[in-house]
Amino acid sequence: MTGKLDVEALLFDVFGTVVDWRTSIIADLTRFGAAKGITADWAAVTDDWRGLYQPAMEEVRSGRRAWTILDVLHRESLEKLLVKHGVAGLSEADKDYVNRAWHRLRPWPDSVEGLQRLKTRFIIGTLSNGNVGLLTRMAKFAGLPWDVVLGAETARAYKPLPQAYLASAALLNLAPGRVMLVAAHNNDLAAAAAAGLRTAFVARPTEYGPRQKRDFKAEQEWDIVTDSFTGLAAAMGC
Amino acid sequence: MTGKLDVEALLFDVFGTVVDWRTSIIADLTRFGAAKGITADWAAVTDDWRGLYQPAMEEVRSGRRAWTILDVLHRESLEKLLVKHGVAGLSEADKDYVNRAWHRLRPWPDSVEGLQRLKTRFIIGTLSNGNVGLLTRMAKFAGLPWDVVLGAETARAYKPLPQAYLASAALLNLAPGRVMLVAAHNNDLAAAAAAGLRTAFVARPTEYGPRQKRDFKAEQEWDIVTDSFTGLAAAMGC
Repeated sequence: MTGKLDVEALLFDVFGTVVDWRTSIIADLTRFGAAKGITADWAAVTDDWRGLYQPAMEEVRSGRRAWTILDVLHRESLEKLLVKHGVAGLSEADKDYVNRAWHRLRPWPDSVEGLQRLKTRFIIGTLSNGNVGLLTRMAKFAGLPWDVVLGAETARAYKPLPQAYLASAALLNLAPGRVMLVAAHNNDLAAAAAAGLRTAFVARPTEYGPRQKRDFKAEQEWDIVTDSFTGLAAAMGC
Repeated sequence: MTGKLDVEALLFDVFGTVVDWRTSIIADLTRFGAAKGITADWAAVTDDWRGLYQPAMEEVRSGRRAWTILDVLHRESLEKLLVKHGVAGLSEADKDYVNRAWHRLRPWPDSVEGLQRLKTRFIIGTLSNGNVGLLTRMAKFAGLPWDVVLGAETARAYKPLPQAYLASAALLNLAPGRVMLVAAHNNDLAAAAAAGLRTAFVARPTEYGPRQKRDFKAEQEWDIVTDSFTGLAAAMGC
């Protein structure tokens, strides 16, 4: 399968593909609530928080809003959710801590081993809508051995805009066809393919927990289709 | 010494500070020449190549030239040097290979151990005039365990312009005072300090071989002054 591929770098979608954001955020908020004596439906807060993710980025993608990093968008969404879910009395430091839950996400069980194997033969990096500071701290927290941290902030464009993919390849001095996007989301891969990148789909059918409605399987003939990073490593000869 | 420092990230000048570019380039060119049957004074080629580094960047810093990455500046300088030193008959592939000698630089003996120790407590990254692709490949070649690859290309400004330092701190969501620049060059540290960064001087007195004329010692009271990355790690409590 990889014989036809002339890839030097594998760039990864992160939220959902590398890390299990939903389980991680629910656990983080639950611990925070218990420590502070605050009761709330933390799973609902988490799902609502992620629900505001695309609308917040769309304000920037559309040009209605100047470039704004994801940490700031997350914080604005959090303020709305605290009101909606009746969580009151948090200090600014509390809110900063809670917002940085997105820096404390845990990897899927196969992620670190797969990345370590892929790193022996390829440049591995992020191609995420997360900002550089968020992704860098998450990598240290989760043990993700990135060679390079790229994505929306270094491209100044949120996925799935073509510039997000093209600028990331250019930062590595690579033509788009020498870069593979690895993602658990068919729409991300479709945009990457349209920009000329190679594609690998990794199924993460529990990303959204009981609310998952799509991305159970590959919807196009991506270059690689698998269900783990160790499977991806094997497919890439690592 | 570090009690007064509230630093979360150490960002490193690379050429001369982390890697011994002169010895590495001379050895790389000598091997290339031997394989191709080309004779030249490769030490002189190397010193001349580095001699064109600042003038080439100054065209960009001054605004006379649009943003251009270092790989391109290196390649233009190489073309001039091949003529000057009477090296003829190289193919485009040969020139690409030679130009990428800057991606194949070897670390000083203490660099990797020091970085590994510092990485346990701090975000460690580059703050180099090298482009992202160059720095990423060099890191894989030399075993440099960066958390993040930043510098002139991500800031769109060559050091010592203030923007190079300020944009790098901002990409990590950090105020300048929470970032320390590590460099073997007093002028780089002076510019970093003027931008509000903390500073560490690491003496590399053989960087320029017999041509070294400055930077034998710290010329101001930098936050840390040492002569190795292991010394730096110890000073930072790692």
